[in-house]
Amino acid sequence: MPSQEQMKVALQAYVDGFAKGDAESVIALFAENAVVEDPVGTPEKRGEEIAEFYRNAVGAGAKLILEGPIRGSHGSSAAMAFTVEMPGMKIFVIDAFTFDDEGKVTSMRAYWGPDDLIQG
Amino acid sequence: MPSQEQMKVALQAYVDGFAKGDAESVIALFAENAVVEDPVGTPEKRGEEIAEFYRNAVGAGAKLILEGPIRGSHGSSAAMAFTVEMPGMKIFVIDAFTFDDEGKVTSMRAYWGPDDLIQG
Repeated sequence: MPSQEQMKVALQAYVDGFAKGDAESVIALFAENAVVEDPVGTPEKRGEEIAEFYRNAVGAGAKLILEGPIRGSHGSSAAMAFTVEMPGMKIFVIDAFTFDDEGKVTSMRAYWGPDDLIQG
Repeated sequence: MPSQEQMKVALQAYVDGFAKGDAESVIALFAENAVVEDPVGTPEKRGEEIAEFYRNAVGAGAKLILEGPIRGSHGSSAAMAFTVEMPGMKIFVIDAFTFDDEGKVTSMRAYWGPDDLIQG
């Protein structure tokens, strides 16, 4: 099981990767077999789809403004709440992650609905 | 599928139930077959265990201070970030919920680890 510290460092690196415009550092946090559901209720992304997704998001100038501390769990899961800020748009998001024993992300599920996206 | 509005009203009622010290109004939000994993990584609670869990938490004086807006999804899931404040203790928590077609909660998973609980 990854440590709480290991998961929280990974999620801070995820936020920092967006801040630095460094999509590759975000993609590198994921395990090879990882699954991304963003937003929850849409088809899962895997492999190259995940890489493309993050290159697009970082390329669009998305920045993540954390709301409160990153949360761990009593297992290999962690979560964080943030606002995505990008030109012309804000999205209120909560991401929930699972990790493998090496501390790589095996899944990410992003909670945000149509009402959580604000234009302008 | 429940509406985004329906899920967000239910989660606000969950927060309000704690504020009012009304455990029964919180318990009433759950479907009969609901599952609660609080915190994530510990055994699931069902039925009477869920009722007992909320009676204990509300009885202990727990209040939930929301951090940012309640999030929906593009499906029947929603999530919220908050701080639990109770005498002598604070816990930083993110709760993720699923709902049935009637808008009753079918599952709740609470993300908080040992490091997210602060004494005093």
